[in-house]
Amino acid sequence: MTIKSRLEKRIEETTKWEIRRQYGADGPNEGHLWVLACMDERLPVDEALGIRADTPVGGGDAHLFRNAGGIVTDDAIRSAMLTINFFGTTEIIVLQHTGCGMLSANGNDLEAALRAKGIDVDNVPMDPSNPELTLESGSFAKWIGMMDDVDETCLKTVDYIKGHPLIPDDITISGWIWETEFRRLRAPITGTTEGRERTQYAASVMGVKGSQPPRWS
Amino acid sequence: MTIKSRLEKRIEETTKWEIRRQYGADGPNEGHLWVLACMDERLPVDEALGIRADTPVGGGDAHLFRNAGGIVTDDAIRSAMLTINFFGTTEIIVLQHTGCGMLSANGNDLEAALRAKGIDVDNVPMDPSNPELTLESGSFAKWIGMMDDVDETCLKTVDYIKGHPLIPDDITISGWIWETEFRRLRAPITGTTEGRERTQYAASVMGVKGSQPPRWS
Amino acid sequence: MTIKSRLEKRIEETTKWEIRRQYGADGPNEGHLWVLACMDERLPVDEALGIRADTPVGGGDAHLFRNAGGIVTDDAIRSAMLTINFFGTTEIIVLQHTGCGMLSANGNDLEAALRAKGIDVDNVPMDPSNPELTLESGSFAKWIGMMDDVDETCLKTVDYIKGHPLIPDDITISGWIWETEFRRLRAPITGTTEGRERTQYAASVMGVKGSQPPRWS
Amino acid sequence: MTIKSRLEKRIEETTKWEIRRQYGADGPNEGHLWVLACMDERLPVDEALGIRADTPVGGGDAHLFRNAGGIVTDDAIRSAMLTINFFGTTEIIVLQHTGCGMLSANGNDLEAALRAKGIDVDNVPMDPSNPELTLESGSFAKWIGMMDDVDETCLKTVDYIKGHPLIPDDITISGWIWETEFRRLRAPITGTTEGRERTQYAASVMGVKGSQPPRWS
Amino acid sequence: MTIKSRLEKRIEETTKWEIRRQYGADGPNEGHLWVLACMDERLPVDEALGIRADTPVGGGDAHLFRNAGGIVTDDAIRSAMLTINFFGTTEIIVLQHTGCGMLSANGNDLEAALRAKGIDVDNVPMDPSNPELTLESGSFAKWIGMMDDVDETCLKTVDYIKGHPLIPDDITISGWIWETEFRRLRAPITGTTEGRERTQYAASVMGVKGSQPPRWS
Amino acid sequence: MTIKSRLEKRIEETTKWEIRRQYGADGPNEGHLWVLACMDERLPVDEALGIRADTPVGGGDAHLFRNAGGIVTDDAIRSAMLTINFFGTTEIIVLQHTGCGMLSANGNDLEAALRAKGIDVDNVPMDPSNPELTLESGSFAKWIGMMDDVDETCLKTVDYIKGHPLIPDDITISGWIWETEFRRLRAPITGTTEGRERTQYAASVMGVKGSQPPRWS
Amino acid sequence: MTIKSRLEKRIEETTKWEIRRQYGADGPNEGHLWVLACMDERLPVDEALGIRADTPVGGGDAHLFRNAGGIVTDDAIRSAMLTINFFGTTEIIVLQHTGCGMLSANGNDLEAALRAKGIDVDNVPMDPSNPELTLESGSFAKWIGMMDDVDETCLKTVDYIKGHPLIPDDITISGWIWETEFRRLRAPITGTTEGRERTQYAASVMGVKGSQPPRWS
Amino acid sequence: MTIKSRLEKRIEETTKWEIRRQYGADGPNEGHLWVLACMDERLPVDEALGIRADTPVGGGDAHLFRNAGGIVTDDAIRSAMLTINFFGTTEIIVLQHTGCGMLSANGNDLEAALRAKGIDVDNVPMDPSNPELTLESGSFAKWIGMMDDVDETCLKTVDYIKGHPLIPDDITISGWIWETEFRRLRAPITGTTEGRERTQYAASVMGVKGSQPPRWS
Repeated sequence: MTIKSRLEKRIEETTKWEIRRQYGADGPNEGHLWVLACMDERLPVDEALGIRADTPVGGGDAHLFRNAGGIVTDDAIRSAMLTINFFGTTEIIVLQHTGCGMLSANGNDLEAALRAKGIDVDNVPMDPSNPELTLESGSFAKWIGMMDDVDETCLKTVDYIKGHPLIPDDITISGWIWETEFRRLRAPITGTTEGRERTQYAASVMGVKGSQPPRWS
Repeated sequence: MTIKSRLEKRIEETTKWEIRRQYGADGPNEGHLWVLACMDERLPVDEALGIRADTPVGGGDAHLFRNAGGIVTDDAIRSAMLTINFFGTTEIIVLQHTGCGMLSANGNDLEAALRAKGIDVDNVPMDPSNPELTLESGSFAKWIGMMDDVDETCLKTVDYIKGHPLIPDDITISGWIWETEFRRLRAPITGTTEGRERTQYAASVMGVKGSQPPRWS
Repeated sequence: MTIKSRLEKRIEETTKWEIRRQYGADGPNEGHLWVLACMDERLPVDEALGIRADTPVGGGDAHLFRNAGGIVTDDAIRSAMLTINFFGTTEIIVLQHTGCGMLSANGNDLEAALRAKGIDVDNVPMDPSNPELTLESGSFAKWIGMMDDVDETCLKTVDYIKGHPLIPDDITISGWIWETEFRRLRAPITGTTEGRERTQYAASVMGVKGSQPPRWS
Repeated sequence: MTIKSRLEKRIEETTKWEIRRQYGADGPNEGHLWVLACMDERLPVDEALGIRADTPVGGGDAHLFRNAGGIVTDDAIRSAMLTINFFGTTEIIVLQHTGCGMLSANGNDLEAALRAKGIDVDNVPMDPSNPELTLESGSFAKWIGMMDDVDETCLKTVDYIKGHPLIPDDITISGWIWETEFRRLRAPITGTTEGRERTQYAASVMGVKGSQPPRWS
Repeated sequence: MTIKSRLEKRIEETTKWEIRRQYGADGPNEGHLWVLACMDERLPVDEALGIRADTPVGGGDAHLFRNAGGIVTDDAIRSAMLTINFFGTTEIIVLQHTGCGMLSANGNDLEAALRAKGIDVDNVPMDPSNPELTLESGSFAKWIGMMDDVDETCLKTVDYIKGHPLIPDDITISGWIWETEFRRLRAPITGTTEGRERTQYAASVMGVKGSQPPRWS
Repeated sequence: MTIKSRLEKRIEETTKWEIRRQYGADGPNEGHLWVLACMDERLPVDEALGIRADTPVGGGDAHLFRNAGGIVTDDAIRSAMLTINFFGTTEIIVLQHTGCGMLSANGNDLEAALRAKGIDVDNVPMDPSNPELTLESGSFAKWIGMMDDVDETCLKTVDYIKGHPLIPDDITISGWIWETEFRRLRAPITGTTEGRERTQYAASVMGVKGSQPPRWS
Repeated sequence: MTIKSRLEKRIEETTKWEIRRQYGADGPNEGHLWVLACMDERLPVDEALGIRADTPVGGGDAHLFRNAGGIVTDDAIRSAMLTINFFGTTEIIVLQHTGCGMLSANGNDLEAALRAKGIDVDNVPMDPSNPELTLESGSFAKWIGMMDDVDETCLKTVDYIKGHPLIPDDITISGWIWETEFRRLRAPITGTTEGRERTQYAASVMGVKGSQPPRWS
Repeated sequence: MTIKSRLEKRIEETTKWEIRRQYGADGPNEGHLWVLACMDERLPVDEALGIRADTPVGGGDAHLFRNAGGIVTDDAIRSAMLTINFFGTTEIIVLQHTGCGMLSANGNDLEAALRAKGIDVDNVPMDPSNPELTLESGSFAKWIGMMDDVDETCLKTVDYIKGHPLIPDDITISGWIWETEFRRLRAPITGTTEGRERTQYAASVMGVKGSQPPRWS
């Protein structure tokens, strides 16, 4: 083989990787995977899932969505809809964690704190680039998205995504909890505290008084 | 020093890290940093910014928000509001990239494709957990958030965040473009194509016909 | 310096290490430390305590006693008495762990199982080399040393050693629990299950029926 | 294979390792091995036997019992009985070493030294948690367990364990001497000093006058 | 095999490598390759082509010709003629790069600068060892070899070499551009600036006024 | 320092390196060095001189000119003139080597071989891009540049460059011989064969009959 | 510093090392050391003495003499005389080892074995290059140089060298034994077997009958 | 396999290595090799021959004899005789080197220098342990063993050994020269200086006047 043909091949492969998105469903990420995870600095997504999200040329295991809490939002629906319907993704992982900031305060108290700073929380633009998206007045505290219980939230998040009309039925979806305290992964636990004691799995465990505004009911 | 006192100290430090969020503004991440980045598998956030988002016990340089495009959304505002007002963060980085999937199609075409599958895009729930959040009928294609131009989008994203009432004035905010084609970072470029030619910086460059629905105007 | 004098010095140092025990209190181990730990294969003593028990020539951080449970026994008292009174040791660490085999069955059931094999447990020699050591008939099940609760056992073990007439008052003594489930160390916890849930800290947690024979009362 | 099924498998394996003791004989350590060794800081058990006692998740080659001398005691019998009868262990190694502290003094002198400190050695509790275990008055010096000869002690230790009614007949048992002076292993040597000269194999070699109290006769 | 025969073989191989040139076409370099590249310190030839030009005993992938610009000159023709006709080489690579010094000024200006220093550029000896080689008076600025466009130059260089009577027809020849700005290789681009924008591919791009003296027309 | 200012600084430094040539004499290579070396695959320039010619971003020790022989030619004069007068270079190294192909045949024989192939060597274009450069008819064999003696050639090469009107007087110039046989460097040797025996330093040593066409006289 | 001066310095240092012997006492080895050691493949001289005998350019800690036994012979005297009187050496180490082949048979038996092969051991040339060196007839077995006791031999070797008229009085001389069995060094031991039991220190220990021919008396 | 049987096997192998010499011809070194080399600190035997003379337990490629010059002496004959006839060796390598101290002076001058120090060189004991070995008066200078030419010496050394009655005919013998100047091996060269010029291969090359005392004739 000549050096010439070796160089031609190398350039062809690199170029294809660079314009991968233009191939649509024929240019998926390596894992055909979309991850919804919390933005916390103590949540190591690659370690937790055994994948590589940050990659050398040619690689990249997942489309990685992260927000405060790793919860379902209209943005999460939007992002999942795109990767699932248009970019070849076939699996969804929801990854939340204990000790989350979303469990560390009551949404009503946060709202009050912002009001105390002089912010009119009933009239903040939801999305400055998209005024057609509106929030019913009085719903601000709910919109913040604080959780009462991370396991319940994780399971509901999975359910909400599964049931959403923009997500096809044949997608594999699962939810997982990273225990910040123990640097280990577990499946969400329901109807009991057994198996998650000692972790900061709930707002009450983190010293928060009262229930959160009822978004997750 | 006895082994006993050594062990006591080690446990104290680890415990503090685990419940860091309960310290609020006194328990910030290491970089006092919030990053808004695209979810693309070819965007290596740690390499691009020279930070460590995934960390050993005790570390963690940033709260890392990622969505489709790395654009401002109500979810991004919500997440930034939380880390800035309540968790000690003082700097925001917006990180978008060339060759983005958000530049690879026209939002109207995507909407049409979904309709063709039988989905009623005028009545999809925005956020199944938060029905108070609504989208004006007919705005679906706009809501998808496709971009015409990544540099313009990045700069507008910085502006939108800067001007939002939930973000204090003294926060450092900057926007950056990762060039997927060259694995390198640049500042956004305006009013010209000079300095970004050869990258897939715009929908037109990626072969998309027509303007996107006018969210970013 | 000649090679000759270098070699003389090297040999002198190695020789002193080899006959260290003949120096009595003037030839202590490196950490002046005695550890009482369980014999379980999943209890990594060096990792747990940040010491090096297995060493190159010249090193060695601790006298390391291990038995079933890491509990106080006449053998533990004997071994601690020797290192403390005669070999320069000044600190004691008790290291037990969750998921211990000593929590995994009821001592009475074990006794019954041995009887069922035809063993006369009322007349087994305690120590075949030391017939002067005797066990009151009927105490076999108690002698086995099964635990009800590992934290309580650890704390009592510390107390028993502290109060024993063969152990001087000025020795530093502390007790620690290794959580097998999480590969991490914690201090023992009393009067509550908070802080140790999800670990196999008690016989009841491991599915054992009834209380152990009352050695640890 | 989906990421979901990969994660399920990983969690299943880790969990099984953590609760291994609850499987009884079906959850043995990796080597099906019980080791009786001296607690000396210069006895590197892993190096000497070519095993790994301290291990990563999933591993662990032996139940490792260590006391002063690595001698048979009621505690050793108790611990061996448990691992052999209830936890799937099928082999026993006795590991003692030259230059042992148990060869470095005469038990009678140690007893005298304790008396000189004001300790009533005829009435010390054997095991504060187990008063039913008693030592015949006047046997204290013998109970200390000093050795005259480490090879003889090792061989007798093997014999005592072999012949004990709590130890089944089909267990493989062997005894070994670690030479601290040469960092090497040898089989015990009997009826002669050939093959162990230059090591501190006997109390007399270490400068001790008189025979030990006759425990090992 | 004896040590003797092993040593004889080793010496034979090394000796053959050392006098390789005396074998003519039967002693080619490892890649049967001749490279014509620019002398710029920022052009990493080995990295760019995936070869090893600097080598251990026995190796060496290419005859590597480098001059200012990596352009065709009589010296390049001479060197290529030798390796192709007499030393077994069968492939030629031309490697030029963006940001080249040959694009950074106008040849006429350089000539003027030299004249200003008092140099008579119409009568400089071309090659002091070879006075038979002469340059038509007034051609100095052209001789300097500055480029207007690196891609065009690269392609013409390939053509000139291909068509030269001293180069046989069956030699594989290709030309490549190293982008200094992006540390990556590309094929030369013609008739458009598409695909090379943002690189310093032309003198005009580097701020040079006017066309170069017309060597490359 | 904010992440923003860190990123600005990093981009500034990289950009400066990329457009270094536009700084002229203020953007020299790291060593302020120009090397004239043979193109032989067995001449490891970096090893021989202790420099790094192929470099990471920001580095690069030399402008590296290589041709058949590492001899002075009009191309070498041109390239040296450029780096010395316009790009901040202050030192020149000439690096030739034993066992060179330029010593392995007689130029007259090479000319004859080409004629035998049907090539009209009296009328080959010297440089197809520069017809103003001409070679006196009958000088072809001389133009090939074969050497009689590498040390003499190296020294003359240094002299020719030193004396050339395009090279200023204050430039440091030295010449060196790499011994291919011994992988080591030596200074050129004159007027004797002492100190270079056993190397292929001359055409006669390599079995070539007759003197070369007298270019180097 | 120019590259030129750097290269001149490097060549000067290397050259001096190469012709070091021509400097006589002003060009000693690095350790000013002469070692007399046995030729056994199990005697690691560098490890035993903590020196480097095999070295990179510029190094070399000792003149290393090795023969069968590491004993004094006329060759050893000759070699020591040269390094001590003419090459700057100031210290001598004698290094013998246990388990030596020179202890593994009786010299008389070896003589007999050679005779049995038909060799006339009374008339073998001592040194074929030096017929002036003669051995008294009947002394062959003695000449073989077998040892009775390695420690005694080592000490006598030191004494013989110390007392020899060709060795000045102010040279540091010491002798050492490498224990092949334990891979460790010790000083020679006299008048007792204490401290060397278990090693193959004597011919009798290695099963040899009778005393050696009395060379070493 | 039990740990017991693993330990028995390991001890058996180590023990066999330690007493290897007692096996005679059945316990040869790994290479079945005897090397005769110079004692010079710049002669790296392992590197030169590609063997390992200094070894871990179980290894050892050669019996390594070294003296001043690496020449044949009665000691060399003695040592070779032993390894060849009694210890299973089947190959001999003679390894001398250029720049040897044995080429750096005239033996007569060395004799004179010793006389000048007051030493009676006609009556020095050859070997203080072996007075039966005598040197004809007046032969001292010859006995020193200085060389005129290292290649000739190496070849004669091979011949002398080959022809010696104590060396069987079927032994493989070869001689090699290490070039200190070039750190490389070559076969000895005869009847010419071609191939060894530039090395210090002869006394005359090293500046020595006159021929050596005629030992090597």
